[in-house]
Amino acid sequence: MKTKDSALCGLERRDFLIGGGIFLASVLAGLPRKTWPEPLTADPALIEDLVAANRILAALEVVDGYGNVSVRHDKDPNRYLIARSIAAEVVTANDILELGLDSRPVDGSDAKMYLERFIHGEIYKVRPEVKAVVHNHAAAVIPFGASNVPLRPIYHMAGFVGRGVPIFDIRKVAGDTDMLVKTPALGAALARTLGDKPAALMRGHGAVVVADSLPQAVGRSYYLLMDAKLQAQAMALGGDITYLDAGEAARSENFGGYERAWDLWKSKAMGR
Amino acid sequence: MKTKDSALCGLERRDFLIGGGIFLASVLAGLPRKTWPEPLTADPALIEDLVAANRILAALEVVDGYGNVSVRHDKDPNRYLIARSIAAEVVTANDILELGLDSRPVDGSDAKMYLERFIHGEIYKVRPEVKAVVHNHAAAVIPFGASNVPLRPIYHMAGFVGRGVPIFDIRKVAGDTDMLVKTPALGAALARTLGDKPAALMRGHGAVVVADSLPQAVGRSYYLLMDAKLQAQAMALGGDITYLDAGEAARSENFGGYERAWDLWKSKAMGR
Amino acid sequence: MKTKDSALCGLERRDFLIGGGIFLASVLAGLPRKTWPEPLTADPALIEDLVAANRILAALEVVDGYGNVSVRHDKDPNRYLIARSIAAEVVTANDILELGLDSRPVDGSDAKMYLERFIHGEIYKVRPEVKAVVHNHAAAVIPFGASNVPLRPIYHMAGFVGRGVPIFDIRKVAGDTDMLVKTPALGAALARTLGDKPAALMRGHGAVVVADSLPQAVGRSYYLLMDAKLQAQAMALGGDITYLDAGEAARSENFGGYERAWDLWKSKAMGR
Amino acid sequence: MKTKDSALCGLERRDFLIGGGIFLASVLAGLPRKTWPEPLTADPALIEDLVAANRILAALEVVDGYGNVSVRHDKDPNRYLIARSIAAEVVTANDILELGLDSRPVDGSDAKMYLERFIHGEIYKVRPEVKAVVHNHAAAVIPFGASNVPLRPIYHMAGFVGRGVPIFDIRKVAGDTDMLVKTPALGAALARTLGDKPAALMRGHGAVVVADSLPQAVGRSYYLLMDAKLQAQAMALGGDITYLDAGEAARSENFGGYERAWDLWKSKAMGR
Repeated sequence: MKTKDSALCGLERRDFLIGGGIFLASVLAGLPRKTWPEPLTADPALIEDLVAANRILAALEVVDGYGNVSVRHDKDPNRYLIARSIAAEVVTANDILELGLDSRPVDGSDAKMYLERFIHGEIYKVRPEVKAVVHNHAAAVIPFGASNVPLRPIYHMAGFVGRGVPIFDIRKVAGDTDMLVKTPALGAALARTLGDKPAALMRGHGAVVVADSLPQAVGRSYYLLMDAKLQAQAMALGGDITYLDAGEAARSENFGGYERAWDLWKSKAMGR
Repeated sequence: MKTKDSALCGLERRDFLIGGGIFLASVLAGLPRKTWPEPLTADPALIEDLVAANRILAALEVVDGYGNVSVRHDKDPNRYLIARSIAAEVVTANDILELGLDSRPVDGSDAKMYLERFIHGEIYKVRPEVKAVVHNHAAAVIPFGASNVPLRPIYHMAGFVGRGVPIFDIRKVAGDTDMLVKTPALGAALARTLGDKPAALMRGHGAVVVADSLPQAVGRSYYLLMDAKLQAQAMALGGDITYLDAGEAARSENFGGYERAWDLWKSKAMGR
Repeated sequence: MKTKDSALCGLERRDFLIGGGIFLASVLAGLPRKTWPEPLTADPALIEDLVAANRILAALEVVDGYGNVSVRHDKDPNRYLIARSIAAEVVTANDILELGLDSRPVDGSDAKMYLERFIHGEIYKVRPEVKAVVHNHAAAVIPFGASNVPLRPIYHMAGFVGRGVPIFDIRKVAGDTDMLVKTPALGAALARTLGDKPAALMRGHGAVVVADSLPQAVGRSYYLLMDAKLQAQAMALGGDITYLDAGEAARSENFGGYERAWDLWKSKAMGR
Repeated sequence: MKTKDSALCGLERRDFLIGGGIFLASVLAGLPRKTWPEPLTADPALIEDLVAANRILAALEVVDGYGNVSVRHDKDPNRYLIARSIAAEVVTANDILELGLDSRPVDGSDAKMYLERFIHGEIYKVRPEVKAVVHNHAAAVIPFGASNVPLRPIYHMAGFVGRGVPIFDIRKVAGDTDMLVKTPALGAALARTLGDKPAALMRGHGAVVVADSLPQAVGRSYYLLMDAKLQAQAMALGGDITYLDAGEAARSENFGGYERAWDLWKSKAMGR
């Protein structure tokens, strides 16, 4: 896992922009992107975590060139932060956009955006407790999304799977499509399938994972794919499998937000 | 994914050669390789992309020490560019040869060439819209090439699989061989099996993938193997599988040429 | 596998602390951690091996952000050494705590400790010949822990598997839990399931491996997961499998403590 | 794949020793290892290739901390070269020993040797055309060695598999053992099972591969495990599989000695 110098430069530049407040905003008014009508107001530490989350998801092979992660704005619950349309592995703070829950940039940016940002916006609309969303095409979850074999919680690292992982089949709500959740209506339909769960699979496409923090969203994304791998391996043995029961799965979630793993992952992703 | 300094040197040297035009061609007439009867005329940016494609395919494990990628000449549709016979991982601009559609070097080069270059030449002959060809032995596709279980499109990243992936069985056209497509006749037979499809498997050997650009040919090669992996995993679960239907598969292809992934892959392959 | 300079610094600092004896202990009395009521007394070479074991287990993917390894104190069999609660990959000598067999720090340290340290303490209590313990969530062993298909010794590198690998099902001793062995009673129950064996699986959780040295504990942890992988692959072939018989398995153990592999692993983990 | 400076130093030191001839031999008579009764006489280029082969096999995961490779002496067919007992990944020229076909060091060296060197010596005795031998525990071949499902040639890179891969079951010739081929008699028994084939599996243990050169022995070792992986995957699909027939398999071997792959592998293993 390697980091780019430019990423750190990006962070510094953002700190600089934010530190300068209104004066700098006027000085920089000539820059076309992300400076009008207002500078980014999110906590720089949150932006750093979002950059880290992007890189971690790439390093863990949860995402490849495609897939995205967002976090709800820390000061305004009606906004969320997400990168412009680039690969997660190379995201820097300068790539972060601030969007309203309608998934439009609040500053009038004309940066190219992820076609599927509505996955994020529509979930934030109906799940006020959700603070972070990951959309991915992780290899291990695709087979379960295409199969009628349900995902089950096989170990305590994935206790949240015990709440059930619904499958969103876009064909049932929109007929033949290009499979992309690229309209508010499709995002809202996905959010309805997700309901109050921590994760949903998307048939022929991938998965969406939500959580109350970036570390938990990243941790759940990783252990969702691990659970899928391990369940598939256990099934291949051909014997009887004992999954976590409902009580075990629920209690395993108390384990927390994957903080120890996040500390490790972030230190590696940010080259510290 | 690491890059070699020598590769960049190679690019610069080529830029230098091309920049110098006729004068340099006469100065360099003493060099035995690739300078007679004419200097390379392809766009240097295309050559750079071909070098990148070679390295990306190695980094993605689409090719190992064997396998090759070509691109149709940007100025002369009756020529294509391909490396001399070396491993894709270490190809530099200096290794690129310019071949006619008969797969002979146009400049009389005596460099050792890929035995199976006829795969490329014969496909370019009959598929004028094809601009790039990849031949590989990617592990995930070999089992499907040897099996009567058909490849199906399991997710939107591989929508092109929905058009069908025919299998070329060399035994049916040539009896017992060493499996190599090393004559124009065998290349033409493979091209006939490929027909108008984006990809074909080669029984007991590998695959061939075509596209209208290098990024798309590389992207299709990678997502063909991912599709094979994921379908095999889904089948192993033992339940019912819902593949993309014909409409979904076709619409997924509109998604484009894997540009975002290409940008990521190329920046890593070229060490930028 | 990379090492951190800070790790070497940590070693030096510890050597320094230990070398200074009582005088330094009084000078450093102002430091809140690990200096009261007595300095660490373990052999620095043992601490270095414990640091190496942590990093090796991470590099071999026996552990990820979670999982831990301990070693019995070389001078006091009623103590053991284990890192504070951090990821194994980044453990340095400064992170090593000295615990009694009740799994409480002997020096009154208030460092955050692994919740499951009782796995280690309770096994050391009842297995006096055991000198090292590894607890892990290695992917390959989870399926066997959740299945009624028993692990068998498929090759000589894992002859110890022939003694049988019991499965600890926490539900049977404690009903619905969060699956964690986080009390002395649960640790003792696990130790009873382990009995006199070299390893036990933990249903829905992971494995515990014991040995008479760190190299052997690390080696057994690695080859336990390899054995699980290989048995699963052999079963998938669908034919009849010949495992090591009891005599072969027992004789294979004479092979020793994986010293050659340990030498390789340690040199890489410590960057030498 | 990284290389150690010490390896290059080792090569230089050996060149130095050899270059100095008899004078140096007497000067260095005080050194206990490998200088009596005669200096190494093998071609330094062959020793370099043997060092490279060791590192390549480790990089390709054909061997881990265990496994070994030898080459027949270029000037004396009654000798072979093999490393002392260390992990292949860290072998340097200074680690190479010269053994007679009785697997004893010709120079009276007291270096610790591989317990299973008799695999090499006994095969060289009865297969005069064999110039290189690899013994490994490659993960992909263990399942086939323990199963009654025969290995078949699934693609042209492993055409030599078509000659048949016999399985050596040590239990049938020696009853319960520690599985190691650690006597001349066991080595001779393995050589009898191997017969005139290019490879044999060893039940509960690994494989042995022979060839007429180091590049071919390394290439066959790698593509033997690839063939095993791919056959297992193809079988898991559940359909009918078309393997190479006898003619195809035989013709595929004409393909040669894996020279292009060897060139790539060696350049990476030796850091050039």
